[in-house]
Amino acid sequence: MVRIGVLGCGRIGRVHADSIAATRGAELARVFDPIEASAREVGETYGAPWTTSAAEILDDPTIDGIVVASPTPTHVDLLSRGVRAGKAVLCEKPIDLDLARVDACRADLGDLTDRVMLGFNRRFDPSFADIRARVGAGEIGGLEQLVIISRDPAAPPISYIEASGGLFRDMMIHDLDLARFFLGDVVEVSALGSNLVSDEIAAAGDIDGAVVTLRGAGGQLATITNSRRCAFGYDQRLEAFGELGMLAAGNQYPTSVRFSGAARTEAGPPVLHFFLDRYTPAYRAELAAFIQMIATGAKPSPSFDDGRAALALADAANESLRTGAAVKPA
Amino acid sequence: MVRIGVLGCGRIGRVHADSIAATRGAELARVFDPIEASAREVGETYGAPWTTSAAEILDDPTIDGIVVASPTPTHVDLLSRGVRAGKAVLCEKPIDLDLARVDACRADLGDLTDRVMLGFNRRFDPSFADIRARVGAGEIGGLEQLVIISRDPAAPPISYIEASGGLFRDMMIHDLDLARFFLGDVVEVSALGSNLVSDEIAAAGDIDGAVVTLRGAGGQLATITNSRRCAFGYDQRLEAFGELGMLAAGNQYPTSVRFSGAARTEAGPPVLHFFLDRYTPAYRAELAAFIQMIATGAKPSPSFDDGRAALALADAANESLRTGAAVKPA
Amino acid sequence: MVRIGVLGCGRIGRVHADSIAATRGAELARVFDPIEASAREVGETYGAPWTTSAAEILDDPTIDGIVVASPTPTHVDLLSRGVRAGKAVLCEKPIDLDLARVDACRADLGDLTDRVMLGFNRRFDPSFADIRARVGAGEIGGLEQLVIISRDPAAPPISYIEASGGLFRDMMIHDLDLARFFLGDVVEVSALGSNLVSDEIAAAGDIDGAVVTLRGAGGQLATITNSRRCAFGYDQRLEAFGELGMLAAGNQYPTSVRFSGAARTEAGPPVLHFFLDRYTPAYRAELAAFIQMIATGAKPSPSFDDGRAALALADAANESLRTGAAVKPA
Amino acid sequence: MVRIGVLGCGRIGRVHADSIAATRGAELARVFDPIEASAREVGETYGAPWTTSAAEILDDPTIDGIVVASPTPTHVDLLSRGVRAGKAVLCEKPIDLDLARVDACRADLGDLTDRVMLGFNRRFDPSFADIRARVGAGEIGGLEQLVIISRDPAAPPISYIEASGGLFRDMMIHDLDLARFFLGDVVEVSALGSNLVSDEIAAAGDIDGAVVTLRGAGGQLATITNSRRCAFGYDQRLEAFGELGMLAAGNQYPTSVRFSGAARTEAGPPVLHFFLDRYTPAYRAELAAFIQMIATGAKPSPSFDDGRAALALADAANESLRTGAAVKPA
Repeated sequence: MVRIGVLGCGRIGRVHADSIAATRGAELARVFDPIEASAREVGETYGAPWTTSAAEILDDPTIDGIVVASPTPTHVDLLSRGVRAGKAVLCEKPIDLDLARVDACRADLGDLTDRVMLGFNRRFDPSFADIRARVGAGEIGGLEQLVIISRDPAAPPISYIEASGGLFRDMMIHDLDLARFFLGDVVEVSALGSNLVSDEIAAAGDIDGAVVTLRGAGGQLATITNSRRCAFGYDQRLEAFGELGMLAAGNQYPTSVRFSGAARTEAGPPVLHFFLDRYTPAYRAELAAFIQMIATGAKPSPSFDDGRAALALADAANESLRTGAAVKPA
Repeated sequence: MVRIGVLGCGRIGRVHADSIAATRGAELARVFDPIEASAREVGETYGAPWTTSAAEILDDPTIDGIVVASPTPTHVDLLSRGVRAGKAVLCEKPIDLDLARVDACRADLGDLTDRVMLGFNRRFDPSFADIRARVGAGEIGGLEQLVIISRDPAAPPISYIEASGGLFRDMMIHDLDLARFFLGDVVEVSALGSNLVSDEIAAAGDIDGAVVTLRGAGGQLATITNSRRCAFGYDQRLEAFGELGMLAAGNQYPTSVRFSGAARTEAGPPVLHFFLDRYTPAYRAELAAFIQMIATGAKPSPSFDDGRAALALADAANESLRTGAAVKPA
Repeated sequence: MVRIGVLGCGRIGRVHADSIAATRGAELARVFDPIEASAREVGETYGAPWTTSAAEILDDPTIDGIVVASPTPTHVDLLSRGVRAGKAVLCEKPIDLDLARVDACRADLGDLTDRVMLGFNRRFDPSFADIRARVGAGEIGGLEQLVIISRDPAAPPISYIEASGGLFRDMMIHDLDLARFFLGDVVEVSALGSNLVSDEIAAAGDIDGAVVTLRGAGGQLATITNSRRCAFGYDQRLEAFGELGMLAAGNQYPTSVRFSGAARTEAGPPVLHFFLDRYTPAYRAELAAFIQMIATGAKPSPSFDDGRAALALADAANESLRTGAAVKPA
Repeated sequence: MVRIGVLGCGRIGRVHADSIAATRGAELARVFDPIEASAREVGETYGAPWTTSAAEILDDPTIDGIVVASPTPTHVDLLSRGVRAGKAVLCEKPIDLDLARVDACRADLGDLTDRVMLGFNRRFDPSFADIRARVGAGEIGGLEQLVIISRDPAAPPISYIEASGGLFRDMMIHDLDLARFFLGDVVEVSALGSNLVSDEIAAAGDIDGAVVTLRGAGGQLATITNSRRCAFGYDQRLEAFGELGMLAAGNQYPTSVRFSGAARTEAGPPVLHFFLDRYTPAYRAELAAFIQMIATGAKPSPSFDDGRAALALADAANESLRTGAAVKPA
């Protein structure tokens, strides 16, 4: 039985608590949140002890792994204490909004980062993972072009936007990691942004739509199209194109029902709306990989360095947005 | 240059006139209709001579083939005169509403029926023909089950219904021939009918919906589902299922456009509505086969006997409807 | 907390044990199987007490409901003892293979059958249930035609076939119930069967493919097409057609990935193969309905009488198969 | 009867000759090609006079309009002489490879360019035109993002590439015009190119894959993805995304047939391969618009200035490719 503690009982912390509770072979050892009501509620929902002191989890030698799902500014501290305490860590993205701080953490921890897995859950989406495996197996020959379309149903509250680090570091970072999952190293980043969704977001200095083009080290080209708002739900698609063909992942629907009537034919239901519904199987598979990593001592994937690289791409996109020129990521 | 005369300038006669005019290597030699205005209009539209006397076509030695697109009761007479005059004949379905009269015609003409091709245009639909060819090539192994769904956008006028010979002989006869195209000989017919569309049709003594089940000589089962009315257009689909898989032909759309919005996703346009739009390529391919038959002297397919067999199935369906028992077709 | 006992630890008993274990608010109280190894294994897997004596469950006053997932011949006895012991019962289909015995049980239990829910899980499939609800809400106007296609990936072992009661009572009974879910009372049944899959099944006196046509009391027509073998997986589809349009449920796929290459385009993965994968959400929803029934004391749906009616349709199909005539179900 | 002459009997000239011959109300007046064999062959195929002297068409007062389908370097001369001779002109893209020469022609002809329609046939594709009309009608609210994917089945001969003006001016110019069709004026162009398809193309100094991002004057973002080679055929897709939803045009298939077997499900046939098959309806609709322009004296759309603007975008893309910076088109 692998015992896992969850640090942070917000929306994403609950997802992980739920996954752990539903996984045979794993046990939700304890949950932490500085807000007592949150900690208690999640603990009671899943029948697990709860605490308002992170140390109660970090210092507990019976706990094998921790999930860091607290606010971004606390990630570096908690993951560092976790690995120092000998625990495996599953850390939500981003490691930090400041690349320098990430690099400092990396230097500080050295090989201990080998115990840190990054929470890029989309790598574990069954459809994306299937495409990745088949590309790897050569089904489309050499990968040449990648098209990622990723749109949220609706923009988060402006308070969230303001602390998010901006669209590239908050939202597109998932797609940037997904692009790296397929392309490997990225050598060139070119970004355009737009403000067509929300005046409030513009006033906060952020964009609400963007197109980023990447070039992989092997010369492959990738585009990522983001929007903070999508009328028909959570639009999450990917196409991998190569010499021998294309593998494409479409949207996910709650049912297979299609309606045909006088005005429209074969009309489907709205796309799964909320990211937690869309990516439930991905979160489950991600947790299974984390447990596997604990059980076998294998190196994590995605790794701390993958988290660092995705952040560097987001920073490069920001620089390209500012300068109008293609940027080589740091 | 193959010279073809068209007998009958109604809706279906015009289709054939249009196909002939658009076919390089064919010439619309003359068109006939007893109604002068009809004959003149079609003739002038396609720049062809017109006449109100069928004999002007039947007796013209420069005409190689005729299309019989006149009212059903005239088919036997015109096709008989046509083949006797040494012409190839493309005869619209049905040969006649009376199976005895068809058999008499067959006995009368003997081998001359080898110059008669039946107008079962669906055999020439690119999708259905592709499936037939692939079934023949063994792509799904032995054929085991066939599902045909065939619904008209709207019922014809009641005056048409009254003279039509009923749903089985007028509408389903196309599907019965299509079933034979796949199954070969049919040994058992079982029919259920319904009156859910039109009180007028019920008052005329006909059904407006039906399900017919067929058993082929090889033991295969087929279902045909018909309705005289379909809100989303002309619903024409077919599935052939066998040991190794399934080949399915879906509906046809005027564009590939799909709309996704708050209420519906991937909604297509209404299905091609009118049978002439849906089956334009089939009519063209049918005419090409007729020209080929003229040019090579090959035996026609579908043949006179195919026309007879489809009518016998329609009659069997009527008998099954009346008796509630499965019927062996005559 | 609703406490539920499971009687029978075969394949289907495990499905229910798994559902119960995964349902917050429900507790797997105890599992029973006469084979100790089976009972122990399921009990240990789900951390529940296990027993080889059904009485330990039936006599336990702390148990609110039972799931009868034992072999068919034991259903009547166990469900009767269950309701007499004051428990709600979820009974797997069929109640019994003998309609007379079902009727005797009905007479014997009287209103106690109001505590028996039948395990027709397909009514709870999210896609089928969505169509049913939308038909009920009038989205397609009056229902006129229903097309059900239901094919198993592969035939069960011949030993299973021999004890199954035949294709209609074992396999199609699910589709017959689904048809009743849409049509209500059925007044006419017409069946054709085939033996194209397995010589062994033919030797056992059963068919391995079938088409059954039903007429509802409202005049609607339904077809059910079954096959014991399907190369591309578990083919489970339904179309409801009415005056205003059509609602169709397609197959379910493990991913949304489509491959396009030189020979084929937009090719999907095999359909979910095993009935437990395809209908997992249906089993979960079925259990939720059972728990709801226990919690509220509401009448079950599908009911004992629904189980009886589906069996009567299967018997009518058998009679139609034998006589070649349409049959009015008993 | 509108009389039209065709200048140039290469591949594209034949397409137009075929369209004219098939259009009631239009007459193929004469065809020209400096190569006698080409001129004769096309003339004889369509029963039209032919000539090796362009003047025979340009000086013929009975000819209402000309199609300029000759090699690009001759376009400016022939279109200028055509409009000066009082004829309407349908000129294939591009007007010229040299923007300065296009501007000089514009200055030279002045308002006479109002008689020149540009041959951007994709604006007339039924699916793209339908989306454009529906976007114009507000079906998706304000347009925000446009995704164009455009891949050729296979690269043309290297001799063609060398004279083509490069991927942006030869191939992507169609997509650049299509983007302008949706976005209106474009204010920013950012390009990345790749050489993954053909060493020969690289040796000729051209790219064989590209991603170009555009910003419209209204802030909308568009991406165009091109490849000179596509294993599954002629990949031509477009998505228009706005506040209220998305309109997407998928690929076109020769049939609606889908195959499901043990390894793959719902597999379609290869996409229509050759641009002439894919865009036949577009060429027909384009010609109809040209005839309409002749008949009504209306201004052409797309216009000479649209041809100039698309070329300016291609030049901007080339500059962005060279500099790595976003470029404002001239």
